[in-house]
Amino acid sequence: MKRRQLDFYFDYLSPYAYFSWRWVQPLCEKYGLTLNAHPVVFGKLLDHWGQLGPAEVPPKKTALYKYCYRYAQLNGFDFDPPRNHPYNPLPALRLSLPSVAGDAQHPIISAIFEAGWSRGIDLASEEDLAKVLDSLGLNSTKMLRAVKTDDVKNQLQQETTQAIAQGVFGVPTFIVDDELFWGNDQQEHLEIYLQGNDPLNPAKVDEMLARHRGIDRKTFVQRCKPSKN
Amino acid sequence: MKRRQLDFYFDYLSPYAYFSWRWVQPLCEKYGLTLNAHPVVFGKLLDHWGQLGPAEVPPKKTALYKYCYRYAQLNGFDFDPPRNHPYNPLPALRLSLPSVAGDAQHPIISAIFEAGWSRGIDLASEEDLAKVLDSLGLNSTKMLRAVKTDDVKNQLQQETTQAIAQGVFGVPTFIVDDELFWGNDQQEHLEIYLQGNDPLNPAKVDEMLARHRGIDRKTFVQRCKPSKN
Repeated sequence: MKRRQLDFYFDYLSPYAYFSWRWVQPLCEKYGLTLNAHPVVFGKLLDHWGQLGPAEVPPKKTALYKYCYRYAQLNGFDFDPPRNHPYNPLPALRLSLPSVAGDAQHPIISAIFEAGWSRGIDLASEEDLAKVLDSLGLNSTKMLRAVKTDDVKNQLQQETTQAIAQGVFGVPTFIVDDELFWGNDQQEHLEIYLQGNDPLNPAKVDEMLARHRGIDRKTFVQRCKPSKN
Repeated sequence: MKRRQLDFYFDYLSPYAYFSWRWVQPLCEKYGLTLNAHPVVFGKLLDHWGQLGPAEVPPKKTALYKYCYRYAQLNGFDFDPPRNHPYNPLPALRLSLPSVAGDAQHPIISAIFEAGWSRGIDLASEEDLAKVLDSLGLNSTKMLRAVKTDDVKNQLQQETTQAIAQGVFGVPTFIVDDELFWGNDQQEHLEIYLQGNDPLNPAKVDEMLARHRGIDRKTFVQRCKPSKN
């Protein structure tokens, strides 16, 4: 019988993706789930859905960094975010694709997240990323060469396109049995779901979502048409 | 000595504002805080910061309604959202201004939230709102007349403008001693802060926020310049 799968969508730009990566691994162990880690380009999700990222709204960035700092302290680990933020996450994401990372995918993801968000390295720097890979005993030269190939670039684009097609609008996102959970605050609900105790009534949800939209903001709709890229 | 104040910013459009209104009242009692409730126009916050609301990203609305449904079930109350959503929240917000609601402000806010998000009334309907006010023994005719005056309309605009000036970018927002907390998931951190056990190191946060932005998305910046209104 095929093991139950949990699909985890992340970008290294998001501290919440880091936080949830810390608990989603033990969660999958506990419930015997296969954890499929999908690097995706958060900026492309935002472009697609016409949304801003948290770091693009100045007071939101401040509030969230404070939240993250408190969260990390209370959960017993360091919060020391990437030296530059936002930054170009593409090399780090490409390194984390199964075709590049191979069997080391999960350790690589853990190491990059930890180096970026608990030790403040520059996650856009190939030199800094090489050090992370070397610390795992991996061949960083070979891997950093691989991420420059069109094939690997296309794979990351495809991961992102497929995520959008499944309704992924942010990171972290967790999908189990086609049920989508979004955000670091979903651990409790995910766990109740996995235990078979989900209180959700699908018929009731369908009915609620079918209710009318009474009004829509004109300013935003006019100003921010989805791009055609 | 002046009691410590907690400023709570909300819009009836947000179920999270409802959820947090349920716990922020006992929290203020517990810590001897004066609770100042500020109705603000969420759409104007979004316009100002160039952001979309959760209900404006279709899969996000689905995920959040499910989250809300589960959250309410697990916390022992009903989730039955407004008959139309989004809707025009202005009459409900204006009814909740101190100058209109008077001493009944907190009971009015509780009653409107509960009717909208646990019993699914149409929160844009003056008829439905009148029933809520009548159930509290208030003079709904007089109050609904008041919300049509320019004076009251200006007050709501002013609340919103002042909120933006203080960095409020979403609802619910809580401000204590100039410290801003955003979101329904902030109860734990708020409480630790109020107990004087905030683990946050302000100098460290300042240093982190002063780090460089390494890259900014061009597509969004070009497409979504803040409006000049």
